[in-house]
Amino acid sequence: MASVLGSKFKEAGHTILQIYSRNAASATQLAYEWDTESTNYISLINKEADIYIIAVPDNIIPSLVPELKFPGKIIVHTAASVPMEILSQVSEHFGVFYPLQSLSKGMLRLPEIPFFIEGSDDFTRKKLELLAHSISPLPVAEAGADTRQKLHVAAVFVNNFVNHLYVLAEDYCRKEGLDFRQLIPLIFETGNKVNEKSPAECQTGPAVRHDGASIQKHLELLNKHPHLKNIYLLMTESIQQSS
Amino acid sequence: MASVLGSKFKEAGHTILQIYSRNAASATQLAYEWDTESTNYISLINKEADIYIIAVPDNIIPSLVPELKFPGKIIVHTAASVPMEILSQVSEHFGVFYPLQSLSKGMLRLPEIPFFIEGSDDFTRKKLELLAHSISPLPVAEAGADTRQKLHVAAVFVNNFVNHLYVLAEDYCRKEGLDFRQLIPLIFETGNKVNEKSPAECQTGPAVRHDGASIQKHLELLNKHPHLKNIYLLMTESIQQSS
Repeated sequence: MASVLGSKFKEAGHTILQIYSRNAASATQLAYEWDTESTNYISLINKEADIYIIAVPDNIIPSLVPELKFPGKIIVHTAASVPMEILSQVSEHFGVFYPLQSLSKGMLRLPEIPFFIEGSDDFTRKKLELLAHSISPLPVAEAGADTRQKLHVAAVFVNNFVNHLYVLAEDYCRKEGLDFRQLIPLIFETGNKVNEKSPAECQTGPAVRHDGASIQKHLELLNKHPHLKNIYLLMTESIQQSS
Repeated sequence: MASVLGSKFKEAGHTILQIYSRNAASATQLAYEWDTESTNYISLINKEADIYIIAVPDNIIPSLVPELKFPGKIIVHTAASVPMEILSQVSEHFGVFYPLQSLSKGMLRLPEIPFFIEGSDDFTRKKLELLAHSISPLPVAEAGADTRQKLHVAAVFVNNFVNHLYVLAEDYCRKEGLDFRQLIPLIFETGNKVNEKSPAECQTGPAVRHDGASIQKHLELLNKHPHLKNIYLLMTESIQQSS
């Protein structure tokens, strides 16, 4: 998260004053990439920044926050599940800067990021909106903790669970001597279609057609793969219940 | 299927001699688009083509085939699940021309198609390979009925089941007052990642992290959505079993 946001900030011409990380090596690495300073001492964090961004795993935030004091500055975290009020003792200007995207270190391409912001006051909200717009062409929306949590649930379905289906298919291909990479054009097309039509209009396949003969053949082929067979049955049932 | 293949053939400069369809209206419509002839009488099918392509639903093929005789010509169908031998009485040159892609009428963009071919003899295989290359930049592979069936099973996972997860997320968003379209950049990114890394390396989220607190929160949010809650539990379990 920090790595992708930092790259986007650099690209947009922002100044990154300093990186703090408990891990000196990763702070130094990012500082080197962005031509800035780093520290692994909280007491040495630069006090002159306009905005402080806490980009650490959700469960680390509570242990970090009591050590921070940046009066007059803007302090935000990037977590879906943590209420912004956790930051209220750090500064009077606090908020959340939540990217609804799958970000990881060393990404080759930086994807477009839809940002959801929340701020304790107009000043903070306005600044966060400008910051989001400076690194993303997408609309910026406001979202409190409840909405962020719900967005996160939806993201789990379209990102984590979808990726898991790819994992299952890759595993099946390996075991059956097929080349998983031959499925990539189909994977792209499945995602691209969502941009043009509602997914409900795009549902195809034996389940939605109630094509019992094909389903039966597929289940026979999956006899050697009980885990996949189980998922096949459940998803087929779910599709038939939804349509 | 017929509609997309025909558009690709036209684009590549092939001559479409004629369209046959039991449905006169749809035959006329495609013939108009491609500036060619149409018929809805099997007896009036032009005998002069090099290749005849049967692009109808799998279960229609057996009823159509006994009426066809094209000695010396190449006859193929496009179905994953139907053995090529069903065509052996139509001509001595028979085969399969199977596109592993999600195709539908009126597509705005024509996606890239990986073709899997099968032929009764070298002459047929060579012709089908050239035909596939003329409309697709992707490698062409040979695949018999068994392999096609297995590819189809894998396709059901990465296309039909993935799209169903989009349907569930869209439904959840509508019920919770969220905008499903805000998830589209994440959907794209999830698919794009597969081009760079194995999906097994891309798995993120509360399930693979064994983040019980987040999972618990999500399940509470899904109490109002029992169907989604059920899928959430099963996919979470499946991710934890796979990792």
